[in-house]
Amino acid sequence: MNPELSSFYSGAARPSSSSRTAVSNKLNQLTKPPGSLGQLEELVLWLGACQGTDQPQAKKKRILVAAGDHGVTQEGVSPYPSSVTGQMVENMLAGGAAISVLAKQAQAELILIDAGVADDLSPHPNLLIKKTKKGTANLAQGPAMSSTDCLAALQEGLALAATSKQEGVDILAIGEMGIGNSTPAAALYCSLLGLAPSEIAGRGTGLDDAGVLRKQQVIAKALALHQAQLRQPLDHLQRLGGFEIALLTGICLGAAKEGIPLVVDGFISAAAALVALKLEPQTKDWLLFSHSSAEGGHPKALRALGVKPLLHLDLRLGEGTGAALALLLLDQALALYEGMATFAGAGVDEQKEP
Amino acid sequence: MNPELSSFYSGAARPSSSSRTAVSNKLNQLTKPPGSLGQLEELVLWLGACQGTDQPQAKKKRILVAAGDHGVTQEGVSPYPSSVTGQMVENMLAGGAAISVLAKQAQAELILIDAGVADDLSPHPNLLIKKTKKGTANLAQGPAMSSTDCLAALQEGLALAATSKQEGVDILAIGEMGIGNSTPAAALYCSLLGLAPSEIAGRGTGLDDAGVLRKQQVIAKALALHQAQLRQPLDHLQRLGGFEIALLTGICLGAAKEGIPLVVDGFISAAAALVALKLEPQTKDWLLFSHSSAEGGHPKALRALGVKPLLHLDLRLGEGTGAALALLLLDQALALYEGMATFAGAGVDEQKEP
Repeated sequence: MNPELSSFYSGAARPSSSSRTAVSNKLNQLTKPPGSLGQLEELVLWLGACQGTDQPQAKKKRILVAAGDHGVTQEGVSPYPSSVTGQMVENMLAGGAAISVLAKQAQAELILIDAGVADDLSPHPNLLIKKTKKGTANLAQGPAMSSTDCLAALQEGLALAATSKQEGVDILAIGEMGIGNSTPAAALYCSLLGLAPSEIAGRGTGLDDAGVLRKQQVIAKALALHQAQLRQPLDHLQRLGGFEIALLTGICLGAAKEGIPLVVDGFISAAAALVALKLEPQTKDWLLFSHSSAEGGHPKALRALGVKPLLHLDLRLGEGTGAALALLLLDQALALYEGMATFAGAGVDEQKEP
Repeated sequence: MNPELSSFYSGAARPSSSSRTAVSNKLNQLTKPPGSLGQLEELVLWLGACQGTDQPQAKKKRILVAAGDHGVTQEGVSPYPSSVTGQMVENMLAGGAAISVLAKQAQAELILIDAGVADDLSPHPNLLIKKTKKGTANLAQGPAMSSTDCLAALQEGLALAATSKQEGVDILAIGEMGIGNSTPAAALYCSLLGLAPSEIAGRGTGLDDAGVLRKQQVIAKALALHQAQLRQPLDHLQRLGGFEIALLTGICLGAAKEGIPLVVDGFISAAAALVALKLEPQTKDWLLFSHSSAEGGHPKALRALGVKPLLHLDLRLGEGTGAALALLLLDQALALYEGMATFAGAGVDEQKEP
């Protein structure tokens, strides 16, 4: 674990290898060739290990969507105005956004967190106001956040994971909303994975070719500006990140500490997870990377992280949409695990001796 | 269309391009960047075009699973005995197989078809007996089927599609069960796509390295044996295929003729679809290839077919399991299409002028 964390973070828990073995034994009794359900089997093994049981469940699912605004939009890195961040949070709460629909389909609770939205949002039972500032400063001109503000957002994330544990959440998922946030996410991939802006920065919500080039130049400028100060992972997060990203990093760390399995969404959420992995590598055991996004070099970044995403649907929306789809797939994996007959029970002959 | 078919088949229908455009216009009003739901948008566009409406639906789903046995099992190409084919059909009907669970999850009707199972099966309301023979002959020694028997199985498939149309099925899916059937499927990929056995034949239900090598040699032997007689696509199907494969080819052709969208499962089902595409290329418009299987060279075969599979979950079970998962994903795509707010309706600002 990175020494920066030790004052307020006790490290990741360890999943249960004996539960994983117990799940594996049960899977191999089901009426199918061993391993033939591929990644669906891996999902059940992971969930069993995380929950420490051979009867894993995903009854109480919670999707945490963090939102924030970004000073770097001054540089023309998004085709949408910053006003859309708050409007989309309200749309999510009203049920009209993609994540609203998918959360309902997945029978998951959807909680929005204002981590740093520029506009003031109307109160709503599913909205938590955890705003430190009304958006970040322009990372191409200086640090996106102060060190204090960044840590405050991260600690809000840790607290949300702890609350989820107390409330008996079986599985968490994270998503985000923030006009301009594919720029800080791409900057974090560059600085933490050693990738070039041209390898990772993409169209975001719909930049044209000239816009993508401009965005890559903005990131290159920011990297040059901050380079000398990027010593610890938290320096990267503070200088290049965003409030919603820092809060999601905290949720990842918190889920690993509390022992809650967590599903990571796409390009932005995985950048937050990347910071968590740099701070505490054992966080990885608790994270499922839901999908490989169509945004920029996301597949390359996931390969660099050494993770295998579950879905490849060319999604590039964020919000937690890929994570919600992964939750739905996890439900299918559990239905198979719980519902299939065994060879003995169904009177089906097993493999011949070789 | 291939002239072999013209005596009993009138060709594929054409999907509606105007419905596709109407769906596209609606998708672009929803509160998301255009195209950002990736392949989920493509699913709705496809379904709308096939159903000729901008309000596509998948309320009445039907999964047709064809089963048959294979004389080529004499060559030691499967680690399971042929008795498992009939046992697994009964397990599917009793609710204990993977496809039973997933069909229920997808709220899809599951119908089993005995296309040529060696054992006599107990009657069941969801089992159709369409058996021509009790399994194929050994394709490494001679033709798997007679021309007459092969055509009979294919025509049963056409009839099943016609019945599905009459009964108001919104979307069909196909799967299969047949110990040994990855060998005829691999042989068809080789003979129809010009692939080598070593490029396509895999472990099936769990062959070891020596078993895979033996299987590849069996396929090479069969290809050499039949080579001179493989003139038309139906020659390939008759000599190298199987009863369940021929019946599934008929369902693919029938769905395209009747205008029903159809979801294709994995390695075996896609081989049946391949024959249909060789007989009538316009069948392609009606088919969704649900997943890229972990079996042998399935990804390579799908690339050769020029299709992009939806899921990549390392499944290698067959039965229609990948197709059922695709149906579940299609439900999510439709829920988004029907449930999301529009920019105007939600008061969310649209993209700035570039």
